[in-house]
Amino acid sequence: MTDANLTDVAIAELLADAARQAILPYFRQADLGAENKLTAGFDPVTAADRDAELAMRAILADLRPQDGIHGEEFDNVPGRSGRTWVLDPIDGTRGFIAGTPTWGVLIALSDQNGPFLGVVDQPYIGERFIGTPQGAHMVGPLGRRALGTRHGATLEDAVLFTTFPELGSSDEEAAFRAVSRRVKLTRYGMDCYAYALLAAGLVDLVIEAGLKAVDIQAPIALIRAAGGVVTDWQGGPAHEGGRALAAANPQVHAAALEILSRV
Amino acid sequence: MTDANLTDVAIAELLADAARQAILPYFRQADLGAENKLTAGFDPVTAADRDAELAMRAILADLRPQDGIHGEEFDNVPGRSGRTWVLDPIDGTRGFIAGTPTWGVLIALSDQNGPFLGVVDQPYIGERFIGTPQGAHMVGPLGRRALGTRHGATLEDAVLFTTFPELGSSDEEAAFRAVSRRVKLTRYGMDCYAYALLAAGLVDLVIEAGLKAVDIQAPIALIRAAGGVVTDWQGGPAHEGGRALAAANPQVHAAALEILSRV
Repeated sequence: MTDANLTDVAIAELLADAARQAILPYFRQADLGAENKLTAGFDPVTAADRDAELAMRAILADLRPQDGIHGEEFDNVPGRSGRTWVLDPIDGTRGFIAGTPTWGVLIALSDQNGPFLGVVDQPYIGERFIGTPQGAHMVGPLGRRALGTRHGATLEDAVLFTTFPELGSSDEEAAFRAVSRRVKLTRYGMDCYAYALLAAGLVDLVIEAGLKAVDIQAPIALIRAAGGVVTDWQGGPAHEGGRALAAANPQVHAAALEILSRV
Repeated sequence: MTDANLTDVAIAELLADAARQAILPYFRQADLGAENKLTAGFDPVTAADRDAELAMRAILADLRPQDGIHGEEFDNVPGRSGRTWVLDPIDGTRGFIAGTPTWGVLIALSDQNGPFLGVVDQPYIGERFIGTPQGAHMVGPLGRRALGTRHGATLEDAVLFTTFPELGSSDEEAAFRAVSRRVKLTRYGMDCYAYALLAAGLVDLVIEAGLKAVDIQAPIALIRAAGGVVTDWQGGPAHEGGRALAAANPQVHAAALEILSRV
């Protein structure tokens, strides 16, 4: 097979399709086999994670053998093209286990400057958020729409998300709380979905710590494509993981960074 | 029109269908008109709430004129049948505003003993959870399935949800944290969707405070139909609102109640 007619986005969508197909049979199966699971040691989220990453890796081996692969579950594959696919088959495994519909498949394509293409896919809802150098859009239950971050909101107007209140060390938690006290609304529990909502202009800030590269590269590319800003808590690149500050616009980013950078 | 051929569940589904149709045009519209909203004072969640409740009330006036109505947005309608429809068109308005897919339409039917039919509907996902004296089921993106709560889990195995960590007074927050310290996993941010996940056997405990009757009656009927237990924090009825403890089974309920009842 040749990839001559497949764009990067087309490849990314094939990967997301394959991950959906691999994962959905495992989602919300705990209620059917919870007791079996306990006795047999069967962990549906681990099985779904691995099946999905293997499915994506098989596609890349076939269609983009020159590109590298950095995935959560298996060893890195070195590339010859200077480009690397960065894969997190299930971001939000605890949310997945609890049946929430806000975990996601994360797919990024990076070069030496970091991620430039990002997909956040929610298989159960059937919702896909895509950011490329040409722009950002989503496809979901209500159809296709362009994505763009919110402009004009100050820190005091902002909607802030993180996944859980104890987001890292006590210093990191204190820094998060200092931002949280300034904003209009703080919400929890959305995993990678919060980054998608930021790209869609509905959320102004996402602040997290303790991230891996696979957790943040797709959100970075998506949010930048939609007009937002993602850095670490010192204003530097966030794509290697660690602490991330995602913001809808430079003004709200600067206001949050001023607080977080004291950590 | 006559209701002779329409069961209570059929009426409830008509109400949920009407609410979906009324609400979805407003969902995630903030990104399209955020600046207009600020200048014109237009509040999409209030408009969606009111449109949906009016649509549901019109159906009841037509098909069940003998029943009472207790809704969040408008005055009570007294009934002659001893039965009351309890309506919350958008439970989780802050989640709605932020674009999360975990707000819901809540519809209950109650008599002097409390709610005996409950619907939790998530219009964006296209997911509906229904509990009746005959049992509980859901219909969603993957089709129809029976619902049943999880049995066998102890407090130490439990998955606990609440909407936000500051769930009420400082005493209430402390009681919640005392339970949270005992369980395997605590998650936030799901609004009424957490009750649906409990009915589906994926979550073991939901603990909230400061509820209104419209917030909890549909979850009560749904969870009971699926095999779970819902009370206040003293073990009494929760259907008038206030504090709620929803549990997957009597054992985990008793263990959590023992902690919460000290408040």
